[in-house]
Amino acid sequence: MEHTSVYNTADAALTLQEWLQHKDYSRIAVLVDEQTRKHCYPLIQTALPKHTLVAIKSGEEQKNMGTCQVIWQKLTEGQFDRNSLVINLGGGVIGDMGGFCAATYKRGIDFIQLPTTLLSQVDASVGGKLGVDFEGFKNHIGVFREPAAVIVATQFLQTLSMRELRSGFAEIIKHCLIADAQMWEKIRKRDLDQQKWDELVPHSIKIKQRVVEQDPTEKGWRKVLNFGHTIGHAIESYFLAQPKRKLLHGEAIAAGMIAEGYLSVQRNLLPEKQLHTIEEFIYSVYGKATITNEDMEAIAPLALQDKKNQKGKIRCVLLEAVGQPLVDQEISLRDIKEALQFYQGAV
Amino acid sequence: MEHTSVYNTADAALTLQEWLQHKDYSRIAVLVDEQTRKHCYPLIQTALPKHTLVAIKSGEEQKNMGTCQVIWQKLTEGQFDRNSLVINLGGGVIGDMGGFCAATYKRGIDFIQLPTTLLSQVDASVGGKLGVDFEGFKNHIGVFREPAAVIVATQFLQTLSMRELRSGFAEIIKHCLIADAQMWEKIRKRDLDQQKWDELVPHSIKIKQRVVEQDPTEKGWRKVLNFGHTIGHAIESYFLAQPKRKLLHGEAIAAGMIAEGYLSVQRNLLPEKQLHTIEEFIYSVYGKATITNEDMEAIAPLALQDKKNQKGKIRCVLLEAVGQPLVDQEISLRDIKEALQFYQGAV
Repeated sequence: MEHTSVYNTADAALTLQEWLQHKDYSRIAVLVDEQTRKHCYPLIQTALPKHTLVAIKSGEEQKNMGTCQVIWQKLTEGQFDRNSLVINLGGGVIGDMGGFCAATYKRGIDFIQLPTTLLSQVDASVGGKLGVDFEGFKNHIGVFREPAAVIVATQFLQTLSMRELRSGFAEIIKHCLIADAQMWEKIRKRDLDQQKWDELVPHSIKIKQRVVEQDPTEKGWRKVLNFGHTIGHAIESYFLAQPKRKLLHGEAIAAGMIAEGYLSVQRNLLPEKQLHTIEEFIYSVYGKATITNEDMEAIAPLALQDKKNQKGKIRCVLLEAVGQPLVDQEISLRDIKEALQFYQGAV
Repeated sequence: MEHTSVYNTADAALTLQEWLQHKDYSRIAVLVDEQTRKHCYPLIQTALPKHTLVAIKSGEEQKNMGTCQVIWQKLTEGQFDRNSLVINLGGGVIGDMGGFCAATYKRGIDFIQLPTTLLSQVDASVGGKLGVDFEGFKNHIGVFREPAAVIVATQFLQTLSMRELRSGFAEIIKHCLIADAQMWEKIRKRDLDQQKWDELVPHSIKIKQRVVEQDPTEKGWRKVLNFGHTIGHAIESYFLAQPKRKLLHGEAIAAGMIAEGYLSVQRNLLPEKQLHTIEEFIYSVYGKATITNEDMEAIAPLALQDKKNQKGKIRCVLLEAVGQPLVDQEISLRDIKEALQFYQGAV
């Protein structure tokens, strides 16, 4: 797979303008949600040639086939041909869904990612994974396809709430835990508001790119990026169905990393001392989500739908040490429940 | 793009069984419609290990996102993981839609094509084009992805009506007109029921494979396969919206080839004598569909949605001679109307 061009920039509008100068698209659409329409679109609007604004509601619950049909319809009505471009201006929902719609419209037109959340800057916009949720399962329908470009502008981070910033930070923690013990030592000694995004964002993107290049369609090593996600996604799916108990992606992944860290210790892989540093830091940043015994019973089976499983066996990433992940580690429903109990402090 | 393995066989069950022996799929689904469930599935059923039968209604009007959702749901309920297989047993609708569903389920699982109609044997099952119709536009949403294998068994042709056989024959005619003048001379001297399918099917597949290999994602030369389809698809789309005037794909393409042949003569490309042989043979096999002036007004603009267009200009394939196509030839709405009038005998 080709290496996608990632532009780290302080001025998204300027970079976008320069990039478009060398292209000759017949139609351009900009996909936004309510948030990015208000806070981010004004920052790039004047840099763009004639374009169609496609606005959808904000939120993960919009990331479904119904919204895709609305997007495809707008492109069809606008007579977008194969030589058109879709610019996805937003977080993971916009990038994943807008990318999927572009990758399937007339069997694929160009799209560029302009990630506006920390989470999408360090995770969703790199690696070519596109898709939407289906029947409560995250990213269940999708494709792999690289964007024509990714423009990462930390200026957009100023439009985020502290909670959203904290959610994205979970992926940075993950990248350190699977690939850079030194950087882990740095970040765990700083509070959230002391973190240096201008340094951390490109660092995280580089780790992800290095992994994805080796294994673009996730047959093997790319699975390391899934650390914290087997249990984390199950937690996230569960809370998604309970609108009153909202949990952001990174908050669920943070819990998942503690749970999978615990299982790493149980298998005599990760030294207990390292787990303590992980626990300590994650609890200090995220606090602890309340997960009852009843919740745990419902959460564990949701991990059966993880895309990395094979033959009904749940597989996750465990750590031998900070910076040293192992993929394809089989775990049971019982392991998951026990790990969630550890997370809640009951083991 | 890799060369997909195409197996020409007299016994689909045996070939399928042998192919599966070397694989280790965790789940297998067989997608059928009412027709192939009744006539084709019994021919392979016993050759298959444990599998899930997914049955949908027959017909092009089923080829939409709603049916995809039903298929994705069946796979989800059956806990199909990424190491699963979908076997598409049917014509173009089953192959295109089942392939699309497999290619997007968990970002892509394996699928094999078992084309049962002449049309899908010589056209749809080779070349990796997958997708469904959207808002009346053919194959508007889809992806390019090669099947794990294509098993072509002429035994299935015995399950077809003469009209279906005739529809598929249009693609064989097209392959001769764009790539093999000698074979064209042979087929045009035989009636439909004298055609030698065991020879023509592999011959047609080879032509298509040769073209697709050179240009898998249709940036250039692959467009030659579109001869007859720019106007033909517009005719097909139009009739699709009129359930009482049913026109099969090949019947629309046959009309499209006469229309685009006419435009080739108008541009001083194709010798008029060659157009006469095309006209004569196609009318003798297909008769003439009734297209009124009112129909023509509605049909022409439908060509604006063709995926090969650029910047609102309609582009089609014209012939310099039988066997010598030219791609990217710009035509106008007026050209299309005039060509349809020629087809109706009014020019």
